[in-house]
Amino acid sequence: MQLTRAADYAVRVMIHLASLPSGTRLPLNMLAQAVNVPESFLSKVLQSLTRAGLVASRRGTDGGFTLAAGTNTASMLDVIQAIDGPIQLNVCLAHDGSCARSGNCPAHPVWLRAQEALVKVLAEARLSDMGTHAHSASLAAIN
Amino acid sequence: MQLTRAADYAVRVMIHLASLPSGTRLPLNMLAQAVNVPESFLSKVLQSLTRAGLVASRRGTDGGFTLAAGTNTASMLDVIQAIDGPIQLNVCLAHDGSCARSGNCPAHPVWLRAQEALVKVLAEARLSDMGTHAHSASLAAIN
Repeated sequence: MQLTRAADYAVRVMIHLASLPSGTRLPLNMLAQAVNVPESFLSKVLQSLTRAGLVASRRGTDGGFTLAAGTNTASMLDVIQAIDGPIQLNVCLAHDGSCARSGNCPAHPVWLRAQEALVKVLAEARLSDMGTHAHSASLAAIN
Repeated sequence: MQLTRAADYAVRVMIHLASLPSGTRLPLNMLAQAVNVPESFLSKVLQSLTRAGLVASRRGTDGGFTLAAGTNTASMLDVIQAIDGPIQLNVCLAHDGSCARSGNCPAHPVWLRAQEALVKVLAEARLSDMGTHAHSASLAAIN
């Protein structure tokens, strides 16, 4: 079981954007270098984040990517779900209620509690807090 | 992100075995029918569970599968890891320490806490408790 690499990259780039002074816009190549992700892959990730309203992009010579307004309060869960869709630990927890066994399956409530515990941690992790941490760490590395 | 279907099947069959009177041995076809899993797939799952020491098997006309001694205290985590190996939420948490970013990456401790929360729920879920629940549910269905 693994979250996708795209979701990992999305978290990286969102934390980096959150660590920058408000309104900072960066072009793809600078973002790719900063978060150590191949440009072509990052481009697709940024498209998904833009579609989800987490990132705002502008074309042109002064173009690039910035956090969308209000996104500082977004969580790691928001970012992951923008890429991977709703977290679903296994097929037992399919949202379409397709599992006919769930009503009397003793494993079902355990899978559910495990998923809820995971989701809670990710929902409580705010980009704004992590961006501040990243900013402090990069200053400490310079000094 | 999903746990494998094999791990789901392993959990199902282990709970079923735990719900039976101690020492009950069942052949593959009866187990497959009871947990609603294709025989060929279940056979591979049972091989892995036997290798991991969670299931004991015997060949022959009175052969079949039973819980290995002491397995009643095993957890859902034990069963899942017998099939899928150690739970690893994403590449950031690789056990080989291959991520050079982990030391100053603000996402790393969040991934770690999320994984720990998930693992804790699965480690606390004992097969013996779930087997009792399954046994009661099947009796209730009969009556």
